[in-house]
Formats: sequence, structure tokens, C-alpha cells
Amino acid sequence: MPKPIIGVMGGTDADDHVLRMAEQLGALIAEKGWILLNGGRNTGVMAASARGAKNAGGMTLGILPGTDTRGASPDLDIPIITGLGDARNLINVLTPNVDIACPGGAGTISEIAFALKNNKPVIALDFDLGAAFARYRDSGLLIGADSASNAVNCVASWLADH
Amino acid sequence: MPKPIIGVMGGTDADDHVLRMAEQLGALIAEKGWILLNGGRNTGVMAASARGAKNAGGMTLGILPGTDTRGASPDLDIPIITGLGDARNLINVLTPNVDIACPGGAGTISEIAFALKNNKPVIALDFDLGAAFARYRDSGLLIGADSASNAVNCVASWLADH
Amino acid sequence: MPKPIIGVMGGTDADDHVLRMAEQLGALIAEKGWILLNGGRNTGVMAASARGAKNAGGMTLGILPGTDTRGASPDLDIPIITGLGDARNLINVLTPNVDIACPGGAGTISEIAFALKNNKPVIALDFDLGAAFARYRDSGLLIGADSASNAVNCVASWLADH
Amino acid sequence: MPKPIIGVMGGTDADDHVLRMAEQLGALIAEKGWILLNGGRNTGVMAASARGAKNAGGMTLGILPGTDTRGASPDLDIPIITGLGDARNLINVLTPNVDIACPGGAGTISEIAFALKNNKPVIALDFDLGAAFARYRDSGLLIGADSASNAVNCVASWLADH
Repeated sequence: MPKPIIGVMGGTDADDHVLRMAEQLGALIAEKGWILLNGGRNTGVMAASARGAKNAGGMTLGILPGTDTRGASPDLDIPIITGLGDARNLINVLTPNVDIACPGGAGTISEIAFALKNNKPVIALDFDLGAAFARYRDSGLLIGADSASNAVNCVASWLADH
Repeated sequence: MPKPIIGVMGGTDADDHVLRMAEQLGALIAEKGWILLNGGRNTGVMAASARGAKNAGGMTLGILPGTDTRGASPDLDIPIITGLGDARNLINVLTPNVDIACPGGAGTISEIAFALKNNKPVIALDFDLGAAFARYRDSGLLIGADSASNAVNCVASWLADH
Repeated sequence: MPKPIIGVMGGTDADDHVLRMAEQLGALIAEKGWILLNGGRNTGVMAASARGAKNAGGMTLGILPGTDTRGASPDLDIPIITGLGDARNLINVLTPNVDIACPGGAGTISEIAFALKNNKPVIALDFDLGAAFARYRDSGLLIGADSASNAVNCVASWLADH
Repeated sequence: MPKPIIGVMGGTDADDHVLRMAEQLGALIAEKGWILLNGGRNTGVMAASARGAKNAGGMTLGILPGTDTRGASPDLDIPIITGLGDARNLINVLTPNVDIACPGGAGTISEIAFALKNNKPVIALDFDLGAAFARYRDSGLLIGADSASNAVNCVASWLADH
């Protein structure tokens, strides 16, 4: 049985509050014994969540957009090199069992949308997505959380049920 | 100078109002002498917009997700076969000069997000996207329109300016 | 019924003999009323075949690897922007009815391989592929041709039969 | 410093000799402490090499073409779900430090070609590639090996030098 893989998405230009939350989220994922997956770059929520997981002794996987490891976070155990640019966002959300989305811009939204389209649960962490995603909140596939620990509890519940 | 290519996105399970709007939009794009591009499948906004453009004498391009033309709209002049599944959504929005988004679900939202991330203008036609996209409405990259003719006028203005 | 689309592959650093052959091939494809498709860049066999087709009044489609039209051949009617890097090679060979491969390096070989894997006929034009592809020559899916006109005749036969 | 990742490619319909070689190769990779990466499906060289690595206590990574884990080898520690079909072959060869190609058909050849195009060393294990790849043998990027242990020694030399 492979270990659960939890995806963490979020902005490249996140503010301090979001970065602290992402780092804490990475640490909590590691403490649960889950593998953290993100977009692998050394910036914003990607860098912070990988650092949090790594410092807590977890395993980290990064799905990189380029054709080599330039610009990768130093906290990745396994850098996956796709050469696909933004199309790698599909991999970011299909691979995990559950995806957690921290606040971000259009890249993060593309990931949330790809996850939901493929029936993958998404936890929006302190991220108000508004009208566009109403039908997915109504169906329960998109869930809100207001703290990293709350998000991790949601993941744990979901994993226990599936 | 290649002809302008205008992308049309929208739901696969659209209601009658949206389908009529998409068909009219296809016709107006054709009448302008522009090429219509969409996701190529024979369903929803894709089928309706291709039919509208084709019946008005326009050229139609469909970017198909599968490895052959099964399920393609019969109104495509040029079916592009990608074999990439949902990742072809990136091509749908990078190729056009301007993208017009009719109401849809997560697939359509992934396209809007990819377009904006790549600095491509998006016209949201009768589609309330809400909080997630606020920063792009504020910057003017995401524009609202309330009718097919209004959307086409927005495209014409944008093309004249660029 | 969409027009036949014929794919032309080949090296970016081709010698004069290959470039003349590619340009002639583009012209012959256009004269048949077929659409020419290639990788769209302004170099080697891509540039030469697009120029040949365009000068002969044909329609040209280029599947570009980048996120915009930089580096595109000026002879494309329809530049398709994929943002996928080398992964766009799959689209280059799935979209055409038949693929013609001029001499080239690993990029061209990846396209021949993708075509054959997907049961798409490939005409190797003056290109000795050797042992790796023996099973596909034996099955008749990979066919040799020694001149542009010979290759175009092979395509015409194949289209007549399918 | 991430652990070396070694890619193993080869046919889905391999004969017994090739399957035994692939399984042995997986075991030798694991014994070196390297991570094994392959295309992840439960067939041919993919299944055999994952089983060999897993039974020898190694870590296994599979890059799957579909949108879920159906058809995946049971010996994967980390299944990467791409949803990209054949385009995932690019990831298979960009991610490893070195790629080893067992005998196979067009899918395997597409991977060898993508690796070489991106300047990634390839060890052809008991696989006669012939004329198409002559320039890469001449440059030293494509190396022949006649046994699994010979291939692993080539990898070890290459890793020591880079």
C-alpha cells in the first residue's frame, strides 16, 4: 500500500501569513507520515511547504515545470522533471489523494479546477474562491478550512473514509 | 499575417440559453473573418459554437483531448489531435489572440485560469466568476460581457489596440 | 469532411539537400490540396516545408513548443501554441492523416516513434532508420521513399485506401 | 542531495529473457541505493523492473499515463498520475539522472529519443538501435551494455563523473 500523498498548492508571491501557514501545513503533513507533493519551485507556498515538511522529517516530492532542476526547492527528496510548463499542474493534482489549496493566483486556481474536474477532493485553506466554484462546495468535493491543522484533520477524515 | 484566432470555452452540459448564446457567438466570430477555436468535442458550448461558426461560413479549429477524432464535432475544419487529456486545455487558451468564456464548470475554469496566468485576455460572457478572479478583473485582463455581440465588440477593440 | 492533413518532420540543422527536398515536399503537398502540418519553428525542415507549401498557395499549420509565437516560421497560416515543449511532438504526429519524416535527429525520431506507436503511417523520406524500427517496416506501417514526389504518391495511395 | 534516480525503459510485450534481465536490473539498482523510475504499468519491463527493485528493498517510482492508478504495478512506492497518455514518456526520461533502455518497441524508442534530445545519457541494454541513433553513439551519449550488471556499472561510472 503506497503512503498517502497530499498535494499542497498556493501562490508564488504569497504574503507572510500564507507562507507561515504553508510551512506549518508541510510540517503537519510530515508528522502524519504522509508524502508532501507540490509544484517544486523554490518560491512562495511551494518553497515554504517543502521546507516545513523536510524540517519535520517528511518526504517531499516536487513536480517541476522545466526540463531540469534549475529553480527547484532545496527541500525536495524527489524532483520530478516534466518539461511541460504549466501543463504539469494536471500532475500536481491527479497524483495526490487529496489536494490542499492555500491562497494563490491563476496557477493555483487552474490546479483547483483540474482537481475538481477529475473528482479529486480539494481543501481550500483560508482561500475564498467565490461564485465560480459554488457547485463543488455544494457537492462537498470542495471543502473550506481556516487553519493548517483544520485542513490536515479534513485530510485525515477523508483518508479514513476512502 | 495570420488571421485572428478567437477561443470559445464553456460547459459540456450547458442549458439552452447558454447554447443559443454560444451558437450566436460562433456565427459572429465567423462574420468578422476570425477563426474559431474550441475544445472540439461534440457537446455543449463546443458543439454549439462550432456549428454557429460553420453555418456562417467561418473556419473552425478544435483541440481534441483524445488520440483520434472520436467524439469530435462534425463542424470542425481542422481537428487537432493532442492525446493529452485535460492538459490540452492549455493549448485551447494559449493559441487564440483572445479567449471568450461562456458559463461552465471546472474544465472551463481551468482554461480561464491558464489564460490569465499567461497574460491572455479573457472575456467572461454572462459568467459570474466571483472572488477567486478579483485581481484579474481589477487589472483589466478579465472583462465581463453580457451578450455575444458585446463580447465580440470587446474582442474587436482588443485586436484593434494590439 | 475535413481536408487531409499531412505532417512533415525532420531536422532543425538539415543540410542543403534535405532542405531543398523539404521545400519541394511542402509545394507538392499544397498542390494536392492538402494541409501541411509541422513543428512550426523557423529553422531546418520546418521552415523549408512551410515555405514550400505557402509559396505554392497551400495552407500551413505549425504546432509550436513555446508559450507564444516567438521563433515561429513566417509561413504559417495557423500557429498552434502549446506551451508543452517537446511533448508537443505527440500532437505533431497524431493530428495528420499520414506523417512524412525527412532526415533528422532525436526530435524527429521521437515523432516517428510516437506515430508508429499510435498506428499512424510514416513515410521515411531518404532517411535510413535501421534496426530499431525493423518491425514497423515489416508490418508495412513504416514505408521508405527516395524522393519528395515518391513520398507524396505514397500518401495519395494511402488516402485513397482509407 | 536527492538520491540518484535511474530510469528503466523497455517493451510491454517483452520475452522471458528480457523480463529476467529487467527484474535483475531493478534488483541491482535497489542494491546501489538508487531510486528506480519507470512508466509504472503492470506489464512487461515496467512490471519486472519494479518487482526486482521492490523485492531487493528499493524505492520505486512509476509515471503513469492515465488519470488514476488503474493498471499500475503493485510494486510502486510512489505512483505519479499524469493524465497525459504517451506524452508522459518525456517525464520518464527527464526525471532520472541516467536512463537504461531494455529492448522494446516504438514507445521505448520515443523515450530513448527524448532522453538524447535533452542531453540525458542512455544505456541501451542488449538493444540494437541501428542507424537512426548513430550520431549519439558516436558522441558517447548513447552507450551499449550487454548485461544488467554491466549497465549498472556504466551508471555508477557516469554518476561518479557528474
